[in-house]
Amino acid sequence: MKTLLVSLLLAVAMTLSAQDRSVSGGERSVLSVRASQYPRISADHRASFKVKAPHAKSVQIDLGKKYDMVRDENGEWTCTTEPLGPGFHYYFLVIDGVPVADPASESFYGCSMMTSGIEIPYPEGDTRFSLADVPHGEIRMKRYFSKTANAWRRMFVYTPPCYEKSSVSYPVLYLQHGGGEDERGWSQQGLTDIILDNLIARGEAVPMIIVMLDGNTKDFNSELFNACIPFVEKTYRVKAGKDSRALAGLSMGGIQTLNACITHPECFSYIGVFSSGWWVQSRHGMPAHETEKYYEKLKAHKDEFNKGFKQFWFSMGGKEDIAYQNCQAMLKRFDEIGIRYTYFETPGGHTWPVWRESLYRFAPLLFK
Amino acid sequence: MKTLLVSLLLAVAMTLSAQDRSVSGGERSVLSVRASQYPRISADHRASFKVKAPHAKSVQIDLGKKYDMVRDENGEWTCTTEPLGPGFHYYFLVIDGVPVADPASESFYGCSMMTSGIEIPYPEGDTRFSLADVPHGEIRMKRYFSKTANAWRRMFVYTPPCYEKSSVSYPVLYLQHGGGEDERGWSQQGLTDIILDNLIARGEAVPMIIVMLDGNTKDFNSELFNACIPFVEKTYRVKAGKDSRALAGLSMGGIQTLNACITHPECFSYIGVFSSGWWVQSRHGMPAHETEKYYEKLKAHKDEFNKGFKQFWFSMGGKEDIAYQNCQAMLKRFDEIGIRYTYFETPGGHTWPVWRESLYRFAPLLFK
Repeated sequence: MKTLLVSLLLAVAMTLSAQDRSVSGGERSVLSVRASQYPRISADHRASFKVKAPHAKSVQIDLGKKYDMVRDENGEWTCTTEPLGPGFHYYFLVIDGVPVADPASESFYGCSMMTSGIEIPYPEGDTRFSLADVPHGEIRMKRYFSKTANAWRRMFVYTPPCYEKSSVSYPVLYLQHGGGEDERGWSQQGLTDIILDNLIARGEAVPMIIVMLDGNTKDFNSELFNACIPFVEKTYRVKAGKDSRALAGLSMGGIQTLNACITHPECFSYIGVFSSGWWVQSRHGMPAHETEKYYEKLKAHKDEFNKGFKQFWFSMGGKEDIAYQNCQAMLKRFDEIGIRYTYFETPGGHTWPVWRESLYRFAPLLFK
Repeated sequence: MKTLLVSLLLAVAMTLSAQDRSVSGGERSVLSVRASQYPRISADHRASFKVKAPHAKSVQIDLGKKYDMVRDENGEWTCTTEPLGPGFHYYFLVIDGVPVADPASESFYGCSMMTSGIEIPYPEGDTRFSLADVPHGEIRMKRYFSKTANAWRRMFVYTPPCYEKSSVSYPVLYLQHGGGEDERGWSQQGLTDIILDNLIARGEAVPMIIVMLDGNTKDFNSELFNACIPFVEKTYRVKAGKDSRALAGLSMGGIQTLNACITHPECFSYIGVFSSGWWVQSRHGMPAHETEKYYEKLKAHKDEFNKGFKQFWFSMGGKEDIAYQNCQAMLKRFDEIGIRYTYFETPGGHTWPVWRESLYRFAPLLFK
């Protein structure tokens, strides 16, 4: 076992030591691991990467666009990207064709595996997503047994700064991640706690609890209504009742949100759907005609829905968002039926910067 | 940005799809990511790994011992290890000489980077480290501003199952990770919450709070005494005072524990040192002669130390533990001085299975 540790430390040294010798300009990414000086981010938001791989034939960085890395005489590979947009971006290091997480950076569960993330600074003065000197809440990991899944599962729960010392009850936002992610997504990639701490400190959002579930389940409605909501309302000081519950989700979580709120409109007064919309064509095990029953229900109970949802709020990452067409087609049907909603668009595509922005804009609308 | 998602999903498909076609025997590791059928663990606790890397020249699994993977005609590489000991083990996938995290598995911050972990089942009937149908506490992520570090830092805080609904105060164990790890180590690799939930449910440990700090700091004493303890005692319902405080740590955290408890014996009644001991020879910026002042203090105040520490508890992962010699040399000095302590040894080396076992045995001794 001595061999193990020595071998592991040598491996790390081999991988990361390169960074100590020749560091290019810019600042270390806030997501670089402690021992690494890379990735680095320049003043104009280009990211530079470095890895020591003397025996590799080809090394790339995949940020959606692939960047070929260039080898120097020491077997160190580097590349610098074009300027990147602010916020969090997934990326892969691709070694001889195999996409893996970059050992120089923190990893995140996204794209159905542990992948790397890079954080590009927001413009100066935009402190909405920055850790600030304000009272801070907590992110709590809580295990619960789901009879629906017949398994122990985890939820992550944001409690606002005032929760620990108070004895009052709070409203709850249930907030769902996207496909290939899990219950960690909103707190780790999404910075839920920082966003809410800032909004609450500015008086822009009321203190609330945010419950982030694992949406990887065959029957989300059953998990939500039979397992999670009863557990949350039994475990935490939460206000029960429709007007104290909100449900939102991004991408896959947006579809789960739509399905849940239309089948159980009595449960939530506030609905948020980020970068999502029912599939126009059958896909992902959900036939397009399945959604027709939802449109029928919306049509038959139009007034109740319009009255019952205090917010029916949609956001989209611009035309470049892969969910754009589905969302537009759905909202067109809502228009035809006469369902009221709010629509917000911001450039950025199907990415976490858009979803952080969505939460920042959605949370202040809740429980007022 | 559409390209990004498609590219990422393709990358994952390429890496993980292999697993769907030909799955060997055994069970999926509990730490495999959802989309992957590997790593797999056989009934006799051999681990099998698989990765698709058609363009790589050499692929290995590094578990301390390196295993060469063998390529098939589809470019899929596999290997099977010797039987592994129960519990958590770090490992790397080595692609053409570059050690990275295995995309088929969960990642953990250890060895100063995000590396992979595999969990080998404990013997049947040994449920000490298993998620059980008992009341569960929480692991909370809490941010605090450290004037010592002049930076925002994180701590992870275990609160026992009864904490949320009660209004009483609890004693606190401060519990430190090892070198190359951080504040996540004890909850993620160490399963702190599962260990304590089980002990509390069996009536073997009293309900307590466990605070897991980031020990990567130049002045641990200042961080602990000036920043963390005051923050914890202000923020949570904790009992203050020596008899309600314990301090323990593994490896590097064990040295931090020793230094802190000998410079501030008035602060803690319970001390745990896992797989550690002062360096016999100067190393890691700490000259060996530095420890002489601690021995002098122990000698000068022997009776106060013997009376003041209700537990002065040492554990070691057998002779194969890299800290074995340092620990033995230190305890020999303690014997010469007449300092009383308890020593526990279990095979396993300098590894998490030993540290989980250490916590399981140490926690029941506290606050009684």
